[in-house]
Amino acid sequence: MSSGDSEAARRSGLRTTRMEAFSDGVFAIAITLLVLEIGVPDGSEDDLLGAVADQWPSYLAYLVSFATIGAIWLKHTVITEYLTGATSALVRLNLLLLLVVSFLPFPTRLVAEHIHADEAERVAATVYGVNLLLASALVGLLWRYAARERLLRPDATDRELTALGLQLVPSLGGYLVMILVGLVVPLLAVLGYLAIAVYIIVPFHALRRRGSGVRPEPEPQG
Amino acid sequence: MSSGDSEAARRSGLRTTRMEAFSDGVFAIAITLLVLEIGVPDGSEDDLLGAVADQWPSYLAYLVSFATIGAIWLKHTVITEYLTGATSALVRLNLLLLLVVSFLPFPTRLVAEHIHADEAERVAATVYGVNLLLASALVGLLWRYAARERLLRPDATDRELTALGLQLVPSLGGYLVMILVGLVVPLLAVLGYLAIAVYIIVPFHALRRRGSGVRPEPEPQG
Amino acid sequence: MSSGDSEAARRSGLRTTRMEAFSDGVFAIAITLLVLEIGVPDGSEDDLLGAVADQWPSYLAYLVSFATIGAIWLKHTVITEYLTGATSALVRLNLLLLLVVSFLPFPTRLVAEHIHADEAERVAATVYGVNLLLASALVGLLWRYAARERLLRPDATDRELTALGLQLVPSLGGYLVMILVGLVVPLLAVLGYLAIAVYIIVPFHALRRRGSGVRPEPEPQG
Amino acid sequence: MSSGDSEAARRSGLRTTRMEAFSDGVFAIAITLLVLEIGVPDGSEDDLLGAVADQWPSYLAYLVSFATIGAIWLKHTVITEYLTGATSALVRLNLLLLLVVSFLPFPTRLVAEHIHADEAERVAATVYGVNLLLASALVGLLWRYAARERLLRPDATDRELTALGLQLVPSLGGYLVMILVGLVVPLLAVLGYLAIAVYIIVPFHALRRRGSGVRPEPEPQG
Repeated sequence: MSSGDSEAARRSGLRTTRMEAFSDGVFAIAITLLVLEIGVPDGSEDDLLGAVADQWPSYLAYLVSFATIGAIWLKHTVITEYLTGATSALVRLNLLLLLVVSFLPFPTRLVAEHIHADEAERVAATVYGVNLLLASALVGLLWRYAARERLLRPDATDRELTALGLQLVPSLGGYLVMILVGLVVPLLAVLGYLAIAVYIIVPFHALRRRGSGVRPEPEPQG
Repeated sequence: MSSGDSEAARRSGLRTTRMEAFSDGVFAIAITLLVLEIGVPDGSEDDLLGAVADQWPSYLAYLVSFATIGAIWLKHTVITEYLTGATSALVRLNLLLLLVVSFLPFPTRLVAEHIHADEAERVAATVYGVNLLLASALVGLLWRYAARERLLRPDATDRELTALGLQLVPSLGGYLVMILVGLVVPLLAVLGYLAIAVYIIVPFHALRRRGSGVRPEPEPQG
Repeated sequence: MSSGDSEAARRSGLRTTRMEAFSDGVFAIAITLLVLEIGVPDGSEDDLLGAVADQWPSYLAYLVSFATIGAIWLKHTVITEYLTGATSALVRLNLLLLLVVSFLPFPTRLVAEHIHADEAERVAATVYGVNLLLASALVGLLWRYAARERLLRPDATDRELTALGLQLVPSLGGYLVMILVGLVVPLLAVLGYLAIAVYIIVPFHALRRRGSGVRPEPEPQG
Repeated sequence: MSSGDSEAARRSGLRTTRMEAFSDGVFAIAITLLVLEIGVPDGSEDDLLGAVADQWPSYLAYLVSFATIGAIWLKHTVITEYLTGATSALVRLNLLLLLVVSFLPFPTRLVAEHIHADEAERVAATVYGVNLLLASALVGLLWRYAARERLLRPDATDRELTALGLQLVPSLGGYLVMILVGLVVPLLAVLGYLAIAVYIIVPFHALRRRGSGVRPEPEPQG
């Protein structure tokens, strides 16, 4: 990159370096704090194995939240992989996404603590689902904003962008359906949230196209 | 950049890379730890929806602190966007800012816990406001120091620098007024702190100048 | 690197920058959260020295977990040192490793709290060992996947790769043996886990080959 | 840097990028976790101002630990500023430093909780001082190792290196004296630890040489 280009980029747009570093920090902390919620009650010495097994709602909530934050992080890296620069508004939209992501440990704890209790279970699953829906919607918004403002690499084809953008719609639909399911069978909704996250994370299409995979070229870091 | 330039920069100034990384880490953790303060009391199973709703002071405190740390982070990225290098004193001033920012979860908790109690509410809002005022003043100091020591990009126009510098004065004034308001109506002060942070975060001037926006040039990362 | 190469790398593979940053974040948090588990019980004022000494299981658990996460981080940096790019599947496999690593504070706490209690000690040591085994296996899998998919630097010799790959087998064997030992003498297993981590961390072969060490060339950062 | 140089550096030494990122993460978390220890006891509503004031040992401990970790971070950035590469042993020595730094929140809490109690105060101040001494010694060791193994920039003059190296001796001496002082007057020792950290952080010599300061050259980031 010539110095002139750099100058131009610097004056009209913002570097995305710090936005990426800050986001990675928040994602990493939100995903790691979840484990603090897990613990056996005092006085479990006599039957620790039973007490550890009894914590399954905590493990489930941990797994769902980890998978969901992991999926959001994955989508976020795809977006920044295509970004050529940032505008003020993009950085702010990203802050809004981080607000929702870093809130997630609270509903995670609600689900972990109240999965046994009938009525409370329903409330916890709904609060949780709404948080997941919001996070997913904000990632989608971030992508659409970046695409509309032409902040994406000019060499990305329309087909690539449409394909990436469309991934977002089924997640939103899935969360809406699962929130409704959760009003009747809360546990099923939580399993549904896990299924959505796993669906985003596991690269099924990559598995299918396995034989024809393109090898990445060597790319020196830094 | 030629090797000679690099050498010169290295000997007389410090790279800002680690100052940015360390600051991003502290900001990210301070902003994410806030959620640990939120929780429903034990024995809320019977009316979890009510218990979740009763936590509104926690959500408000979370939102205000998140918005404030987000706003400080934004200002901080603007400063480092213009920085060409760091001096020993700048790195130390930055440490002082991080001291104040990472202290914020404590007054946040004070506000969340005591918003109902008459006298305590006043104390909590004041301690909180003083912390926010200090953080804002230190960001301003950091900017002025960098400008005075000519650590900013030589291609930044005086008009740009003055415009950026002036943003700091209304925040400080706003915090001072709100601290006084908080002595009478604490809750109003907390809402005022939120308004100040939102005012800094939302790029109103960008919204107004929308039609004439300049597109950022593609800038390869790294 | 020419712009064309960059383009090619960008389209067929992913940059590893954010995978490294996110992983460093999770490793750093998981390794630092461990200290939150350590504390003396309330009312230890009369004999604080005794109370501090009584916390030895906490210190031991802290040390073992710190050493293990440190060892995994070390292996991880060796892998990314050789990586030329990432595939979707590699990023996902890495997420799975982070899931297991960030879970570690929970069994660490189990060990710290139950080392005195007979039966519970056995359960805690086993849960802990299984977690360590899983983490170690996933690092090995990550390495083998990267080698098989030819994501490693083409200039790395087969001998280097085999040597690095073989390091993984003794760890897995060691963990399996120690899990079995832990069913009889749990404390011995915990000390064994420490020994495995120390064995990975301390560069014995480097110590032996000391005289013939090659000096690294100067490498400007960034 | 030519590709051949890069190759050479890569094969014989390790990049310091991830060591820096991981260290920044651990430092940032250790320094931010300290605030979690601060809180007013339940039932302080009636006199919150008094309760907030009563927490002064917590604020003091927070300040001392923040200043100390900040000082260690500063020294660490100076070291990596001069580093041209890393060896296996340097990365491991760095891990040992991080072990000691991330342990610091525990003795910090001990000091904050026991500053009122006579005997306990002495124990807490001593444990705290030993931790600070160890951290300081390990930073010194890191520097000496890097200097001895010729991992530092060849353009650094012997005078620079000696000057930097000598800074370490007074800190160690200071900590030793203060640990002994703490056996008699614990609070004075804690204030002494603060003085040592402030002495390292505040660039007194820079203040003295103010008039003759050299301006850093512009250095584009990235």
